[in-house]
Parts: sequence; structure tokens; C-alpha cells
Amino acid sequence: MKSLPIQIKLTDNRKEKPNPETLIFGRNFTDHMFVADYDEGKGWHSHRIVPYAPVSLDPASIVFHYGQTVFEGLKAYKSPNGTVRLFRPEENMKRMNLSLDRLCMPRIDEDLALNALTQLIQIEKDWIPTVEGTSLYIRPFVIANEAFLGVSPAKKYQFYIILSPVGSYYKEGIHPVKILVENEFVRAVKGGTGGAKTAGNYAAGLKAQEVADQKGYAQVLWLDGVEKKYVEEVGSMNIFFKINGEVVTPAINGSILEGITRKSILHLLRHWNIPVAERQISMDEIRDAYDNGTLEEVFGTGTAAVISPVGELNWDGYKMVVNHNETGPLARQLFNTLTNIQTGNEEDPFGWILQLNNELAKLA
Amino acid sequence: MKSLPIQIKLTDNRKEKPNPETLIFGRNFTDHMFVADYDEGKGWHSHRIVPYAPVSLDPASIVFHYGQTVFEGLKAYKSPNGTVRLFRPEENMKRMNLSLDRLCMPRIDEDLALNALTQLIQIEKDWIPTVEGTSLYIRPFVIANEAFLGVSPAKKYQFYIILSPVGSYYKEGIHPVKILVENEFVRAVKGGTGGAKTAGNYAAGLKAQEVADQKGYAQVLWLDGVEKKYVEEVGSMNIFFKINGEVVTPAINGSILEGITRKSILHLLRHWNIPVAERQISMDEIRDAYDNGTLEEVFGTGTAAVISPVGELNWDGYKMVVNHNETGPLARQLFNTLTNIQTGNEEDPFGWILQLNNELAKLA
Ligand SMILES: Cc1ncc(COP(=O)(O)O)c(C=O)c1O
Ligand SMILES: Cc1ncc(COP(=O)(O)O)c(C=O)c1O
Repeated sequence: MKSLPIQIKLTDNRKEKPNPETLIFGRNFTDHMFVADYDEGKGWHSHRIVPYAPVSLDPASIVFHYGQTVFEGLKAYKSPNGTVRLFRPEENMKRMNLSLDRLCMPRIDEDLALNALTQLIQIEKDWIPTVEGTSLYIRPFVIANEAFLGVSPAKKYQFYIILSPVGSYYKEGIHPVKILVENEFVRAVKGGTGGAKTAGNYAAGLKAQEVADQKGYAQVLWLDGVEKKYVEEVGSMNIFFKINGEVVTPAINGSILEGITRKSILHLLRHWNIPVAERQISMDEIRDAYDNGTLEEVFGTGTAAVISPVGELNWDGYKMVVNHNETGPLARQLFNTLTNIQTGNEEDPFGWILQLNNELAKLA
Repeated sequence: MKSLPIQIKLTDNRKEKPNPETLIFGRNFTDHMFVADYDEGKGWHSHRIVPYAPVSLDPASIVFHYGQTVFEGLKAYKSPNGTVRLFRPEENMKRMNLSLDRLCMPRIDEDLALNALTQLIQIEKDWIPTVEGTSLYIRPFVIANEAFLGVSPAKKYQFYIILSPVGSYYKEGIHPVKILVENEFVRAVKGGTGGAKTAGNYAAGLKAQEVADQKGYAQVLWLDGVEKKYVEEVGSMNIFFKINGEVVTPAINGSILEGITRKSILHLLRHWNIPVAERQISMDEIRDAYDNGTLEEVFGTGTAAVISPVGELNWDGYKMVVNHNETGPLARQLFNTLTNIQTGNEEDPFGWILQLNNELAKLA
């Protein structure tokens, strides 16, 4: 990992840390943040760690009008012996560059960004909660801050990393959710921005989510925008189906996000010699599997919840209750293995964990 | 028009006005702006006109991460006798509410917003340039400013109106541009946000625009996201084709923006008894018309350029040169009529103009 000379200015006013037992996702932020500036011709510069504070932007900034912005999401955990562990952070930095490319934004140096992140977390390590199911959520993001009302890539950007202590995604541990299959609204289509982690994709999903909420569903399952036939993904999760002993997930097709949890699960399944397939999967096929009793498990995967079992799928009023609305054995095994590796309760045989203490020792 | 009690705080530091002969679109902003705040339970409040100044936002503001933002664009002109004229501003406020609905954002009161706009322009009226082809561009926009990393509609918003003196869109008056038909990237699809004026749509278009630029084309012509067969719109313009005496434009289908210039042109054409059709139109049909010599004119329409004649359409390497790469008679007539009504050189028989002086007199 390359070392980055970062200017560090610490705050005089430490905030009170929230109660780790009652943390809400994405509401509390730590004392400091990382910032860097980009100017065309000059590149990324002025890397700094500063007190968490408001961003000051010209009202004509491109991010407000033309949505040039990308983000990432990952987590840091504190292990039982006190070491700080990041789960595959290099994958997030790689994906951030894919998103930046799609949005015509300047790439970041992945090594330098990782280094900045470890320095920031070192400063904020007392903010990492240790109650079971809690972690420190990390949100890197880049915004276009040039003041210009023209639809063209900006010449000025800012890169931020902010940190938020978060609770377990499930109040009562892992438990199944109800999902509504979305037939009207579309999140993304081939040729669009669905493969990138950019703001507009999430804005596009709000309306459908609102309708699902009102009907008592936790999330929507998006279908492809062309034929409205093939499964894409769920809110901020990828989706897996266990059908007749085989685990199937939609192939990466340009319109879904390639989740890092998804990638890790595929790796685990192959490691365990469980048959897996990444391919197109239609709702017809899922209904048929349900009807003939071979739809064994359904679960979503993502950084926030890790594994989210699906207890009911509602497709146009046809309700499929999966595994008696209980968490299936595979979902549970995946959840336990992943969270144990993440938190340090289990060996990491895959080299997925970056231990902060090791990294900082290398820099010293 | 309802009157709104607006708190007004004028600046002590007036900026120097830019040279009206060399104005660049969207680079200069006036001395003041309008701002209002929204809080769930309280509604829109604290309407104010204040010195143009940076926006201060928590780095976790929803607009940066999940793209909840919409905007509008319209123009004010100064007529030869000095009155200030707005072109169909109530249509923009109506469309803004459609966009706000789609993005799960709170509606604005259209009357109050118009009133705020007229008060702001009254204060800034010396900023309206009078050189031929210039105007004051008006950019209302709403952003979600709640600090929350959750994908759900925000509970806090801000509504801004900023003003920018702009030059003629064409350096040498109205003249034809070259357009590349886009086969790979998609701007919007049925069920998505294409019908709303929201940031993500423009971010999605940047990559294709970059490729077109490199090939020497001014803009891309978007095709539908499902079949990649039917014409949608161009960058920030709607598109019209004159084929064998009939003027055809894509029907409003949920994935294109319903332009106010488009609406006005359809009205003018019907008023002139020129045959018009709003319907699906495929690239095959356009190529056939070109091949048999009936593709008479092609032009884009939008607030920025009013009418933009298309001199060449490139569809997968097949180049169609329209009307010998010259501005056609219909495009010219529409441009002249619309700009004359806008600037006050010609009667406004349709009630499209809101004269500022009249409105303010009504308030007094
Ligand atoms: C749209 C979308 N799909 C899938 C995922 C899952 O990705 P990951 O496993 O990297 O968190 C996320 C969350 O990051 C997402 O926002
Ligand atoms: C995507 C898009 N289409 C069409 C238009 C034309 O709309 P109007 O005539 O209202 O300016 C615009 C510009 O506002 C636009 O951004």
C-alpha cells in the first residue's frame, strides 16, 4: 500500500458517542472526515483529514443539477482481540473507479484511497462499536463541484470519506423479509447506469419503494427494463435463489450492481462444492420452481444486511411463501461464515480481511 | 397570482456585470437568489431572497448519495420598450411538480413560486442583457438536504432559484448541427425517470455525449431503451421531423421530457394549419424518408437554443444530410416567430408571456 502525505487537522470538539445498543443505520457520523480536491490539469490534490463539517458548494454546482456523483459502502469491524478489520476494501475502491468511468469522472488512485481510509479509521477507531451486529459503516463518495449549468463533465471534483457507527440491520437478528416484484417501475436498463453506484439509480427507485412500503413489503425486486421478465436485484442487494439444490443468481449484465457480498458468496459456495450458476433467470422459472416445490431458499446479499432471507415473494398478486417464511439453512450458514470472517471470530482463508494494525505497521 | 411574504436581504457587494457580447451559457450568476426550506410536518417555509452565496450541506445529505433533486430552466427577456417578459413560466412550475412527484419530493405551490420568481427578477432586472440573442436564464431547483444514509425520501429539502445572464446559443445565429444516433447507451426507459427533469438523467447521458464529441458530433439522438428502434429526444431538446409535408415528433411516452418549446411549436404548427403528428417514429422510417427524398427538415427544440436545425444525422455510419445542411424554411419561421414573441418584437396572440411590470403592479 502506498503511503500518502495527508494533512491532518483534529477537532477540538469530540462528539458524544451514541449508545451502541440503539444505533440507527446512517444517522450518526464520527468526528473527522477525509477530503481531497480535483482540478482539471492538476489532478487529485490537497488530501486531508479534517473535522466532520458541512460541505460548502456554489448553488450552480454540477452535482445538484446533472448528478455527477458516485459512492461506495463498506464496513470496519473490531475483532474480539481489538484489531480493526476491513472486509475486501480494495474491491470497493476498484468498483468506485468503474463507477467514476461510467459517469465521466476522474479515477482515484485505489492504493492511495485505501491508505487514506486506514489513516482516517485509525484516528476514529474508538468509534467502532463492538456490540454484536454493529460495525463502522464507511461511505466514500465523489461529487462534481464545478459551478456551471452546462451538461458536460465537470472540471472540478471533491472526494470524501465519512464514517457512521451502525447497528445490526435486523432488530432481532437474521429474519425473513417480504419482497414485492416490481412490474411498473424500472430501476435501470442495459446501456444505462445500473452497473455503477451512482445517485440517480437510487432516486429512480424511490417511487416503487414507496408503493411497496404502503403494501407492507420491505423491498422491491427489480425486473429487467426491456422485457420485464428477468430478475435483476433488490433495493441495495443482489439476489440468490436455491432451486433444486443449485444456487442461481442473475449474471452481471450491465444493469445490476456487482456486489462484493455477491462475489464473496459465489466464492464460498464454490469452495463448499455447492452447485452455482450466474445466468439469466425469469420470474416464470421462479414461479414454476415454487409450484413444483423446488424453490428451496431465496435471499438478498449486500454490505448493510450481509444476508437477508426472503420469506415471501409477491408477483402480481401471486404470493410465494419461501421455506415456510423461515431462514433457510444455506442463508444461515452463509450469514454465519461471512460475519464470523468479518468480525474475526473465524479464520479468513481467502485473504479478504485487511487488518488495520498490520497496515499501519507497514507504513511506520 | 398569490402574493408571498418574502424576507429580502440585499447584498452590499454588487458584482460587475459580464460583457453581454461574450456571454457563455451558465457561467455567470446574478447578485441574489431565492431560497425556501422544507421540513416534514411544517411544509415549505422561510421564503427569502438573499445574496448569491454557497450552499452549506452536511456531507451525508441525501442529494449527494441518492440523487433526490429536480430542476427547471426558463428565460426572461427585456423587450425593446424595457418591459421584462417571461415565456410560459407557469408551465415550468407545473412540470417541476410532476418531477417532484416522480422523485417522492414535496410539491411546491406553483403560484407562490411564480411570485417569488417575479420578485427576484424585479430585484435583478439590470442583469437581463439586451443584445440580440441574449436573455436571463432562470434555474429553479430543489435538493434533499437531510443528513441520512438511507435509501428513502428525505424529510428536509431546499428550493432555490438562481439566475444567469446568457448569450445566444449559436455564435453565428441559427445554424445546423450534426447529430449522432446513439445505439449503445440509453438515457431512459419506460418505467424510469426520463419524463422528469432530474439530475440522474443527465448524468446517464454524459458518456454517450463524450463519444459523440470525439467523433465531431454536437449531440446524440437517443433511441428507446427497449427496442433501440424508436426516436426519443436529443441531449436537452425534443426532436421534430418534417416528412413529406407533415411534421412528426415522438409522442410523450414516459421516457422523454415534455418540452415547453415542443408544446409551443405544436401549438404554432396547428395554428398555421400545418399537418402535425405526435406518435412513435422509428429510425427505419426516417432512413426510408431520407432515401426516397421526403425527409425535408429535422430540428431540435428547447429553452436554451429555441430551435436547433439538424444538418446531419449519423445512424450507425449511414450519414443523412438534411436539407443540404442548411436551415430549412420551417425551422427558420418557427425560430423567428418564437423568439419575436419571447422578446416582444411581435404580438403574443396565445397569452404565453407574463409581463413582470403588470404582475408587480397587481401585487402593489
Ligand atoms: C443497487 C445495489 N445492488 C447491490 C448491492 C450489494 O453490493 P455489496 O455487496 O457490494 O454491498 C448494493 C449495495 O452496495 C446496491 O446498492
Ligand atoms: C431532456 C430534455 N428534453 C427536452 C428539453 C426541452 O424542454 P424545454 O422546451 O421545456 O426547454 C429539455 C430542456 O429543458 C431537456 O432537458
